[in-house]
Amino acid sequence: MINEKRSHHCGVLTKEQAGEQVVLCGWVAKRRDHGGLIFIDLRDRSGIVQVVADPESAGSSFKTAEDIRNEYVIKVIGNVRLRDEDTINENIPTGTIEVLAHDIEVLNGAKTPPFYIKDGIDTDENLRLKYRYLDLRRPEMQRNLILRHKVAKLMRDYLDDNHFLEIETPMLCKSTPEGARDYLVPSRVNPGKFYALPQSPQIFKQLLMVAGMERYFQIARCFRDEDLRADRQPEFTQLDMEMSFMEVDEILELMEGLIHHIFKGALGKDIQIPFQRLTWDDAMDRFGSDKPDLRFGMELKNVSEAVQGCTFQVFNNVIANGGQVKCINVKGYADIPRRQLDELVKFCGIYGAKGMAWLQFPAEGGVKSSIAKFFSDENIEAIKKAAEVEAGDLLLFVADKPSVVAASLGALRIEMAKRRGLIDPDKLAFTWVVDFPMFEYNEEEKRYVAMHHPFTAPRDEDLPLLLTNPGKVYAKAYDMVLNGTEIGGGSIRIHRRDVQKKVFEAIGLSDEEAQEKFGFMMNAFEYGAPPHGGLAFGLDRLIMIMAQRDSIRDVIAFPKTQSASDLMTQAPNDVDEKQLRELHIKTSLLMKKDKEDK
Amino acid sequence: MINEKRSHHCGVLTKEQAGEQVVLCGWVAKRRDHGGLIFIDLRDRSGIVQVVADPESAGSSFKTAEDIRNEYVIKVIGNVRLRDEDTINENIPTGTIEVLAHDIEVLNGAKTPPFYIKDGIDTDENLRLKYRYLDLRRPEMQRNLILRHKVAKLMRDYLDDNHFLEIETPMLCKSTPEGARDYLVPSRVNPGKFYALPQSPQIFKQLLMVAGMERYFQIARCFRDEDLRADRQPEFTQLDMEMSFMEVDEILELMEGLIHHIFKGALGKDIQIPFQRLTWDDAMDRFGSDKPDLRFGMELKNVSEAVQGCTFQVFNNVIANGGQVKCINVKGYADIPRRQLDELVKFCGIYGAKGMAWLQFPAEGGVKSSIAKFFSDENIEAIKKAAEVEAGDLLLFVADKPSVVAASLGALRIEMAKRRGLIDPDKLAFTWVVDFPMFEYNEEEKRYVAMHHPFTAPRDEDLPLLLTNPGKVYAKAYDMVLNGTEIGGGSIRIHRRDVQKKVFEAIGLSDEEAQEKFGFMMNAFEYGAPPHGGLAFGLDRLIMIMAQRDSIRDVIAFPKTQSASDLMTQAPNDVDEKQLRELHIKTSLLMKKDKEDK
Repeated sequence: MINEKRSHHCGVLTKEQAGEQVVLCGWVAKRRDHGGLIFIDLRDRSGIVQVVADPESAGSSFKTAEDIRNEYVIKVIGNVRLRDEDTINENIPTGTIEVLAHDIEVLNGAKTPPFYIKDGIDTDENLRLKYRYLDLRRPEMQRNLILRHKVAKLMRDYLDDNHFLEIETPMLCKSTPEGARDYLVPSRVNPGKFYALPQSPQIFKQLLMVAGMERYFQIARCFRDEDLRADRQPEFTQLDMEMSFMEVDEILELMEGLIHHIFKGALGKDIQIPFQRLTWDDAMDRFGSDKPDLRFGMELKNVSEAVQGCTFQVFNNVIANGGQVKCINVKGYADIPRRQLDELVKFCGIYGAKGMAWLQFPAEGGVKSSIAKFFSDENIEAIKKAAEVEAGDLLLFVADKPSVVAASLGALRIEMAKRRGLIDPDKLAFTWVVDFPMFEYNEEEKRYVAMHHPFTAPRDEDLPLLLTNPGKVYAKAYDMVLNGTEIGGGSIRIHRRDVQKKVFEAIGLSDEEAQEKFGFMMNAFEYGAPPHGGLAFGLDRLIMIMAQRDSIRDVIAFPKTQSASDLMTQAPNDVDEKQLRELHIKTSLLMKKDKEDK
Repeated sequence: MINEKRSHHCGVLTKEQAGEQVVLCGWVAKRRDHGGLIFIDLRDRSGIVQVVADPESAGSSFKTAEDIRNEYVIKVIGNVRLRDEDTINENIPTGTIEVLAHDIEVLNGAKTPPFYIKDGIDTDENLRLKYRYLDLRRPEMQRNLILRHKVAKLMRDYLDDNHFLEIETPMLCKSTPEGARDYLVPSRVNPGKFYALPQSPQIFKQLLMVAGMERYFQIARCFRDEDLRADRQPEFTQLDMEMSFMEVDEILELMEGLIHHIFKGALGKDIQIPFQRLTWDDAMDRFGSDKPDLRFGMELKNVSEAVQGCTFQVFNNVIANGGQVKCINVKGYADIPRRQLDELVKFCGIYGAKGMAWLQFPAEGGVKSSIAKFFSDENIEAIKKAAEVEAGDLLLFVADKPSVVAASLGALRIEMAKRRGLIDPDKLAFTWVVDFPMFEYNEEEKRYVAMHHPFTAPRDEDLPLLLTNPGKVYAKAYDMVLNGTEIGGGSIRIHRRDVQKKVFEAIGLSDEEAQEKFGFMMNAFEYGAPPHGGLAFGLDRLIMIMAQRDSIRDVIAFPKTQSASDLMTQAPNDVDEKQLRELHIKTSLLMKKDKEDK
C-alpha cells in the first residue's frame, strides 16, 4: 500500500516539475505495451498525464501495470521527466513530460464500460443516462459541470457585492390555481391535504420585499409537471432575484453588469454592455418574435404600402381586412430550387400562414415569380426599395393578420438563416425586449388576460387606459434575450392596492375572486409593501448556451428523460402500500386492480 | 413624486455626510410630534436614522409627515446635520446626526401591524408565523437571515478555493426502503409510480465520486417526513460534501479550516483549530454522550472499583451482572434541597435508570446520605479520590448497564450544569467524535445493524473482525460537535466490493437482498470507484447556534409549525379533484366520503 498522500493533479504537471517525485491518483484512460514498456494515460478531473512503467524502475509494480485495464483506479509514485523530442504530444497540456513510475497501487478495479470514456462519443443517450456516472466521467461532461459551478459562483459573488441576500424559500408550498401543473406532495400529518412543489419562488420573493429584505436572490429549484420538450426538465434551476426601491433602468443596468461578470469570469469574454433595448412592438415588427436572434439581420419588411394598387387579390383582401403583407429578403438566394420553395410554404403553414409567396430577383436582372404579373413596375420598385433588394436576392412573403405574419415569417427568418449559414455559433447577441403588452385578448374566454402575471406593473403613463383601453396598456416587463433564446425575464410589480384593483377589474376578476385566489398576498401588501421588481434567469439554458451544447441535459448532472424518468436509479418507482396508507392516498390503478380481483 | 434615486441607506449615515443632501427610502419605525416638529425614525435593512420635518424646511411635505403612520413606506430628500449635544442617541450608529427633510413622498401606506416591529417581542409564535413578512421585518430576524447568507457565502468561497464543485442533484428521486419516512410525489406520466424527495443526496454524491468529480459540495434541501420536534423541520438544509482520494485526517483538517473560515468571517471569532478528537468510547465513558458539551467539565467518574466491598446491594448486584457504577460531581452543591434530589431521581428514570443515589459532602466536612452507612471509610476515600471531591460537593450516582448509565448520567450532567449556571453562552466548544462502532446489536431483530449506514468503511485494522467479532469493529466515521450539538457528521465509504460483501454479510444481508436494495449503486461501484468519503453539516442548526437562538425557526425565512403547516400561506391545502385524477390517485378520505354519500 502506498502511504504517501497525493501530491499533484495529473493535468497540471509541466516541465516545471521535471525531476520531482510526484504521487498521483486517477483513472486509467488508456494502457498500452510498447517496446517492453507499459504506457498509461492517467486521468483525473484536471486532465491526463502519461505514466511509463519499465521493468527496471517499476520493480514489482511492473506486474501490477501489466494487469491494469481501462478505468482502473490507481495510485502512482514516480518521477517527472521530459519526453524525447519525437514523443512530445502537443494535443495535451502535459504533453512535454511523462511520469516514470516507481510504485503503482490498484485502488480499485473496473469492468469494461459500456461506452468509451472520451469526448464526442456517438452513444445512444439512454445508455449514457443509465450509466450517468460513467458519462459524467467524460472530460466534456466534466467541463460542463465545472462551467456550471463557476457561473453559479460568479453570480453569487456579484450579487453579494451588490448587497443581495441569498434567502432560501420553501419547497413544500401551497398549490395555486394559476400557472402550469403542480407536482403535489400528500401530507401525512394533515390527511387529505397536499403540498405543491414551487413553480417559482415568486410569491415568497415578493413577501421578502414586504419583509424589508430589499435585495433577494436564490439559485432555486423549480418544478413544472408539463409534457417535456428537448429543452425542458420536470425540475429546473433559476437564478431568482427581487429588488426594492428600484426602477426598470436600474434593474436592467445591474443585470447587464451581472451577465458581463459571468461571461468575463467563466469564458473570458468581454461582452459589450449596455445591451440594446427593443420594445416588444419593435421586436415583433422587425423580427416576428419576442426573442429575436440578432446574430444576423434579415429583418421583416412591411410591404403593405408598396403593394397597393396591385391586382393580387390575396394581398388586397388581407390588407382590406386589417392584415398586413410582409417579407424577408434572403440575400443572394434567387436561385433557390422550386422544391425548396414548396417546402417553405408548408413550413409557414405550421405557424398558421395560409400561404407564402415569393419574388426571385435573378443575378442577371429582372424578376421571376408566378405572381410577378400582378404587380406594376411601381409596385416592384417600391417592394425592392422597402426590402432593400439587390440582384440575386429572394423575397419570401406572408400576408395575414399581424400575429400570423410575425409567427410564420419570424420562424422562416431563423430557418433561412440556418440554411444560408448566417448564424455564427461564436457570436453572442444580447438584447432586452421591454414594454410588453400588459394584457392579451383571450378569444376563447372573451376577456383580457395578463400576459405575464397580474402582479406586473403597468407603465405609469398607461395607468389611465387600464379600464378604458386595456389592449393599449404596456407593462414594466422585460426579457433578456441571447441568440434567440429568452434567458431571463421579469417585471416591476404592482405595490399599490388601487392599481392592483384596477388590473384585476381589467381581467374580469371580482374583489371576492381576487381575495380567494391571492388572499394572503393581498393582505401582506397592505402592511407597507415597498415598490419592487425582479427577474429570473433560467440557469440550465444559460449554461447550455455558454457551453455551446444543444441539450440542457448535457449541463445537468442527473437529468430526466422526456418521460420524466431517471434511467439510472429507475425513478419514479413503485412504493409500499404502507407508505401510501400513511399518506391517506391510494392509486387509481390499485383500485382498478382491486375491482378486477373481485 | 420624487424623481431622485435613493442615494444612501439609512443605517450608514454618519457625521461624514453632514451637510450633504441625501435621498432615503424605508419604513417608518416611529413617528412623533415634539415642539411643533415631526420626528420620524426611518428604517431600512441597514438600520435606522432620524428624520426631522419642520413646517419651514419641509414645506408642503409637512402635511405628508403629519399623516404618516408606523410602517408606511416613504422616500425622503433631506440634508444631513449634526444633532445638538443633548439629543445625541448613543444607542444607534446614526445617533449623532439627523436628516432635515425637504421633501417626503409616501410610497405606500400600511395598516397597523398585529405586533411591534422591533427586537425582543414576546408575541405568540403562531401570530409571528402567520404574519411572517412582518416578523422578518424585525431587525433581529433580518440579522439572522443576513448571518445565514454570509455563512453560506463563506462556505462556498472556502470550498471553491479548495477545488470543490457545487453540483446540483435531483429533488425528484427514487424512494428507498432505508432510513426515515419519505415525502412522496405521485407521477402523472408514469401512472401508479412515485418519486421521493431526497432525505439527503447521499447516493448521488457517491455516484459523483464514481464519476470522477473528486470534490463535490452542495447546499442542499433535504426532506424527512417525521414527527417534528423543536429543532426539526420537514425540509431542512445541509452543506453536503464528498471527496475522493482522501483519508480521515485530511478530511477533518479541511473541515476545521472551513469552520474556522466561517466563524472568522461571519462572527469575527478566531476559533482554535485543530479541534480535539474524542473516540466514541471516550465520549460515552467521560460524558455519557456521543455529542458531549465541552463548555464545562463535570465528567462521569467510574467508581465501580472504589465501591468494591461495600454492602450496598444495588451497586453490588449491578457490578456482578457486568454493569457499572458511575457518578458526577456537582461542585459546591452539597446543600441541594431534598425535593430536588427526588426530582432528579425521576429525571434519571426518563433515561431508563432504575434509580439514582447521592452522597453529599457538606462544606463543614463529613458525608451525608442515607446510603453512606453501606460504605466503609476506605470506600468513601476511594470514591472521593475517583471523583475529586472537595468539601461542599455533591455526587450523583447511577448503577446500571453501561448504555443506561451513559444516557442518564449524560443527561443529568447537562441538567446540573444548567441549574448551576456552568454553561457560558458565549463559549464555543468544538470537538470531533471519531471511531464510532461499525455495528450495534439490535435486540429485537437479534442481529447486528449498521450504526451509520452499510456503506461506511470499517477501520483497516478491524477488517479481520468483520465476520468473527462485529461488535468490536469500529468505523471510519466522524461527527463534529459544537456545544453539545452534533453539527455535522460523515464517514469514509467502502469502495471495494470484497469489503462491502463482508459488511452485508455481517448485518445478515444476502447477495440477492443487497442487490435488490442497493443494486444500481453496487453496479456503479464496479466501474472504477475511487476511495472516497464525506460529510454533511446541518445548516439550520449551525446558524441557530451562531445566532445564539433557541429555535431553528428563527433562522429559516418561512418555517413550518410542528404540524408541518405554513400558517402564512395555509399549506398544505385542499386541491382540485382534477389534479388528483391526473396523478392517478385518490385520497382515502374522499373514498370514505364517497361511501357515506352512497
